[in-house]
Amino acid sequence: MAKKNMSMFVACFVSSLVLNLFFIINLYVGEDSKLGLSWSKKAAADAEAVAAISCSGHGRAYLDGLVLNEKGFPVCECNSCYGGPDCSEFSPACAVNADGGDPYFLEPFWRQHAASSAVVVAGWHRMGYSYSDHTFISQELERHVRILHSIVGNAVTAGRYIVFGAGSTQLLNAAVNALSTDNSSMPAPIVASIPYYPVYKMQTDIFQSIIFKFEGDASLWKNSTSDATVNVIEFVTSPNNPDGQPNKAVLSGPNAKAIHDHAYYWPHFSPIPTPADEDVMVFTISKLTGHASTRFGWAIIKDKAVYERMIQYMNLNTFGVSRDSQLRALKLLKVVIEGGGREIFEFGYKTMRDRWQKLSETLSKSKRFSLQKIAPQYCSFFHEVRESSPAYAWVKCEREEDRDCNAVLQGANINGREGSMYSAEDRYVRLSLIRSQDDFDLLLQRLNKLMLGEEGAKPL
Amino acid sequence: MAKKNMSMFVACFVSSLVLNLFFIINLYVGEDSKLGLSWSKKAAADAEAVAAISCSGHGRAYLDGLVLNEKGFPVCECNSCYGGPDCSEFSPACAVNADGGDPYFLEPFWRQHAASSAVVVAGWHRMGYSYSDHTFISQELERHVRILHSIVGNAVTAGRYIVFGAGSTQLLNAAVNALSTDNSSMPAPIVASIPYYPVYKMQTDIFQSIIFKFEGDASLWKNSTSDATVNVIEFVTSPNNPDGQPNKAVLSGPNAKAIHDHAYYWPHFSPIPTPADEDVMVFTISKLTGHASTRFGWAIIKDKAVYERMIQYMNLNTFGVSRDSQLRALKLLKVVIEGGGREIFEFGYKTMRDRWQKLSETLSKSKRFSLQKIAPQYCSFFHEVRESSPAYAWVKCEREEDRDCNAVLQGANINGREGSMYSAEDRYVRLSLIRSQDDFDLLLQRLNKLMLGEEGAKPL
Repeated sequence: MAKKNMSMFVACFVSSLVLNLFFIINLYVGEDSKLGLSWSKKAAADAEAVAAISCSGHGRAYLDGLVLNEKGFPVCECNSCYGGPDCSEFSPACAVNADGGDPYFLEPFWRQHAASSAVVVAGWHRMGYSYSDHTFISQELERHVRILHSIVGNAVTAGRYIVFGAGSTQLLNAAVNALSTDNSSMPAPIVASIPYYPVYKMQTDIFQSIIFKFEGDASLWKNSTSDATVNVIEFVTSPNNPDGQPNKAVLSGPNAKAIHDHAYYWPHFSPIPTPADEDVMVFTISKLTGHASTRFGWAIIKDKAVYERMIQYMNLNTFGVSRDSQLRALKLLKVVIEGGGREIFEFGYKTMRDRWQKLSETLSKSKRFSLQKIAPQYCSFFHEVRESSPAYAWVKCEREEDRDCNAVLQGANINGREGSMYSAEDRYVRLSLIRSQDDFDLLLQRLNKLMLGEEGAKPL
Repeated sequence: MAKKNMSMFVACFVSSLVLNLFFIINLYVGEDSKLGLSWSKKAAADAEAVAAISCSGHGRAYLDGLVLNEKGFPVCECNSCYGGPDCSEFSPACAVNADGGDPYFLEPFWRQHAASSAVVVAGWHRMGYSYSDHTFISQELERHVRILHSIVGNAVTAGRYIVFGAGSTQLLNAAVNALSTDNSSMPAPIVASIPYYPVYKMQTDIFQSIIFKFEGDASLWKNSTSDATVNVIEFVTSPNNPDGQPNKAVLSGPNAKAIHDHAYYWPHFSPIPTPADEDVMVFTISKLTGHASTRFGWAIIKDKAVYERMIQYMNLNTFGVSRDSQLRALKLLKVVIEGGGREIFEFGYKTMRDRWQKLSETLSKSKRFSLQKIAPQYCSFFHEVRESSPAYAWVKCEREEDRDCNAVLQGANINGREGSMYSAEDRYVRLSLIRSQDDFDLLLQRLNKLMLGEEGAKPL
């Protein structure tokens, strides 16, 4: 019996040794193949090391950030008013940035979806100029853009052509160029309704074209669209930047052409009552996924001749959109589309709605400032009436003497963008609500302090 | 003694069990932390799975390729004349592509440097519009561009400004725009020496500008540069596309401005006698690293006012270059710069020189075709006299009746690009030598067969 026990004991010991041998071999030989990773491991480890750099929740380090410290790691890039090596130093006297349109409000969403949204680009990834169909447009990405619109219900794409651009920015002039008439008696007037996005004018002006010219306020051209020799081209931004209104074209007639800029027509910022179905529609991921820096947008075009002119423009301007941007946009859209888009749009709407409510409540404490009003609408994406959740506050200084509203806010350490940038009065100022939570919290804090001062100074 | 042996035995067994336990815990808990990888693993595994798809050495699958098969994997994209699901089917009757400038000749280099050239992009990587200095230009990348030029010795960058563009393409018009005079009596004439790259004309034409106009052959404007009211702007391509010649500006005088396109001024294609030091120089990674699809180029500018106009153009045209492209370009330039650049330039020169020698030898078998001659020069990068290794063959059909040289080659199943595309005679044809080894081998084979026919038809 003792001998039998001893044999079993030895057998167990041998088994244990064999198992250890297996583990040891596995450890030194099989690790790579077990994970299936070889050449990508170093890049993955580099990216994770940078992502792990602590910036105190008030910033982040990037792979391509400035390398200043002796370790060779990129430094933290801090939210405004935060500084120091790890963004932990708050500057109480610093002016809060409510100016820029950087869409950092979606950054937490992408951190929560780190595994599904990362992209690994091999060194030899797609080196040639074109895709397999000899175009500069990824068919896979175009397919995902169409799926996206059918899920969100914000644009008709069936039977429409799609052109890619470096953000919506590049597409704006591509569309202007395509809609302008060659050899006409005068350049096509380019117009927009006040208040309008300043890039429309600045971009149109810089090209100093024979065939188009920026002419400002659309309403002045209402009676001028019957001239059959020239198109009048209207930028229609809906929802509008800066004021979030669901704009419609003010010009009509056979020679009135419109470029519908739908950068903000996503459930984050606006109810989606019906799919847009205009002749020329422009979209961008900058305000959809928040990846402004990827520079990826698209236009949906009804007319083949307009589409072909836009494609030719894109090809000669830049040989199409960076294929690296297209690869990343594809990955991001896949995440957006997962689960019918509910996750990102619920996150986006909740964030924007919460910010809008807090801002409205704060500004309602005084009559010195007023906010734009946007009517609630039925949203076919969320299947319910949704209250407004705009990307920007379009604040009006109501006091007669507050003609420079931005200066008033600057007095309270808030940097907004003056109304005259949007061809409106400086009695208006645009405050960006799509930046980081730090920026919004600080904006709200400064506004609350300003309101308290108001309360003290004037009876409510 | 037996008891002591037994104790040691038990101790060994227990140790072995503890080791087993350690390995087992490690297997199920510690794997991620052991490699230091978490959120990037899935993306890395996806990229490696696609890279592992077998395309028989005649093609490659890409992460963003068409997904047609039931497994959901992207399909192989084959070199020209290869097909089938794994690119193993050769089509003997197919015309070889010697037309396009896709720089696949460097693909094997990047496959050999897979670990150092891969990039992992986190979902939240750099979402805002600008870098930490509020520009659209990565300081880290600009620093690497300057290091690159100092290593290669092909351009002076000290005290110069740098502008980024979507390839050199976007920079060409940015430079034209910046060098043109506002409010002048006539549009600035844009000229180039024949044979010239067709995009100069096509791009200049599409913008239909008030301030510049493409006027063709530079030599016709030699006596027109004394008019003090307007600049004449000359594109100088050096080495030239299509013929590889080290061109100089033909115009001079106070109103002659030049845009030096140095896309091919790298040791792959040309000896580097001295650093270029012109007022406006344009470079691109398309022909340096071979990443045409990344759309990344840069201009080196002497004059601050010209630089500022170009920056303004880039900002309003596209809000700068895709930050994803800049991230990838940074990684690629780091690999190029490693070891002083010798590895990639030796690979590139060896490949191009080998192709040129084989092509020259083949075409020398008959007098029906002639090739451009490029004088050897001392190369300060390789520290020796280097023979020519141009990107393209500029082939001339010498027989009186062969007025359409491309048609002659098409008869032998070779697709080149006709001379008239470069504003030259169709007696010339451009053959691309920078494509995949498959394309080059097939081109050579077809040319050899054509030469054999020549031998049979005519006494040598």
